[in-house]
Amino acid sequence: MNRHQLPTPALVVDAATLGANLAHMAVTLPGARCRPHVKAHKTTVLAQRQAELGHRAFSCATPREIVGMAAAGLGDDLLLANETVDDTRLRAMSDCEGRVTVAVDSSATIAAAARNGIREVLVDVDVGLPRCGCAPADAPRLADEARALGLEVRGVMGYEGHVYLFADRDERRRATEAAMELLLEAHRSVGGEVVSAGATGTYDLNEWATEIQAGSYALMDTAFAPMIPAFRPALWLETTVISVSARHAVVDCGLKALGMDHGDPEIDGGEVWLVSDEHLTFRPDEPVRVGDRIRVWPAHVDPTVAYHDRMHVIDGEHVTDVWPVDLRGW
Amino acid sequence: MNRHQLPTPALVVDAATLGANLAHMAVTLPGARCRPHVKAHKTTVLAQRQAELGHRAFSCATPREIVGMAAAGLGDDLLLANETVDDTRLRAMSDCEGRVTVAVDSSATIAAAARNGIREVLVDVDVGLPRCGCAPADAPRLADEARALGLEVRGVMGYEGHVYLFADRDERRRATEAAMELLLEAHRSVGGEVVSAGATGTYDLNEWATEIQAGSYALMDTAFAPMIPAFRPALWLETTVISVSARHAVVDCGLKALGMDHGDPEIDGGEVWLVSDEHLTFRPDEPVRVGDRIRVWPAHVDPTVAYHDRMHVIDGEHVTDVWPVDLRGW
Repeated sequence: MNRHQLPTPALVVDAATLGANLAHMAVTLPGARCRPHVKAHKTTVLAQRQAELGHRAFSCATPREIVGMAAAGLGDDLLLANETVDDTRLRAMSDCEGRVTVAVDSSATIAAAARNGIREVLVDVDVGLPRCGCAPADAPRLADEARALGLEVRGVMGYEGHVYLFADRDERRRATEAAMELLLEAHRSVGGEVVSAGATGTYDLNEWATEIQAGSYALMDTAFAPMIPAFRPALWLETTVISVSARHAVVDCGLKALGMDHGDPEIDGGEVWLVSDEHLTFRPDEPVRVGDRIRVWPAHVDPTVAYHDRMHVIDGEHVTDVWPVDLRGW
Repeated sequence: MNRHQLPTPALVVDAATLGANLAHMAVTLPGARCRPHVKAHKTTVLAQRQAELGHRAFSCATPREIVGMAAAGLGDDLLLANETVDDTRLRAMSDCEGRVTVAVDSSATIAAAARNGIREVLVDVDVGLPRCGCAPADAPRLADEARALGLEVRGVMGYEGHVYLFADRDERRRATEAAMELLLEAHRSVGGEVVSAGATGTYDLNEWATEIQAGSYALMDTAFAPMIPAFRPALWLETTVISVSARHAVVDCGLKALGMDHGDPEIDGGEVWLVSDEHLTFRPDEPVRVGDRIRVWPAHVDPTVAYHDRMHVIDGEHVTDVWPVDLRGW
């Protein structure tokens, strides 16, 4: 099938760009130095490609992602880089075929992990982003609590997501270093082999973590791409022009096909005016006709992918594969 | 099951509030005066409730919604209030068990409808929102084209979505009247019995349309509710506190559970700081603990529902039903 025959809106992945992104990461942070985050693509076939390039350890954001990865035979070393006190889901993770480590940042999350058969944890440390993670000074106490309940403490994790506030690369590097000082301080008292941190945005800045949780690098998006030019956007929405007027035109892709938290998408050959539930209104640079195909580039790949049940892989113009987005939900 | 036992994040509908919203609409715009828009909830069980209150004609935004509604026995009078030139999907709609009318606004959409067995159309007219719809002056020509191809032209439709720019109700009413003057001008030359327009936001302002395409009124959201106080938010995300620090707390509901185009959601008992993929960071008014349940109210209901595969109906604290969100996709 040609990509122009796909029913629209369709999530499309350019195989060559994806391949280049994956290869660059596999060279820069080989093997266990990169722990790919599957939340960015929620697709076990894509994770399999990452594993074939040497990354056998993965990060997940939801129990559903952990269980799905294990069921797909990708359970060598799965980290739930997130907190949960859901007994049923913790039990499902501890029962799955694979090695599962969960993040903990409180007595409650430690107790929940222990009572549901989880064997290994990382102590999650707040390194500056206002989200999960204990204060660095609390980390040793939590590690002791975990060990007292029979849990193996593999080390620490911390996410320096706040450094994206700095557009300048040197400033980002300094902010990353300051964040990692907090994480290493916690690590000295917690022990263990793992210092897990980072993201695509700090993959070549963060020298302090033992592993980088990079997700966006595989598919990229318009919000991140200018900051990290080594990786190029590989994913777009294939859309069809459904209406043309004197001033504007409309394609069949809207809020229910696009993560909108990072703002409007970009569109080939035009300027986006308005995005509504199932429409995107734009001013075309050149005249377009009803039925024309147009590419729309999401601003944020993660919540975009989460709206779709499959992604279509293309080589040139030919659709070579359809990958189920099989890790959606919780 | 009690709602506190639901795995989170969970989409929850308060049966009493939903019932009051549906009842108010059924009294204000009875029977065919309201053509409920299923795009807002994508749930045939909820549409069935609307049908039982007298609204047997529905609006849809996607072919998938049309086909799903017909399969659910709700095909008395289905309007695709949107344009498409997808032959396969037009054929699926013309083959389904029900009466299907589609919107057309160009020669291309008319030809596509005719060649795929669609029997009835509305001419979609641009009444001020920069989206689909022909210029009013083009409407008679398009109606003639449609009739020449054997299509029955039932009338016109136009969506006055731009009137939401006016916070003041009187200004909204004047803008609605101006938009409907354009639609009625088109209608005079097109003919047919139907003048379809409107939305929840103009349900009690638009005296000119023969039917109102209202969707949001059933479940409502925080962006719309202040403008239309007759309907109250009936849908929220049930979430669990997973992390607590000195300054903030985090619940397990993020960008992949919430439509974000209308901005941040609201949270009971706190102020939202940050929404990321699977987290919402907030400042609680009173101390909270890990494991506490908190309600999060989406700013825009339509793209929120589209992330979920089911909604949980509660009566008081008791989960009385689980409704599949069965009209997702395209």
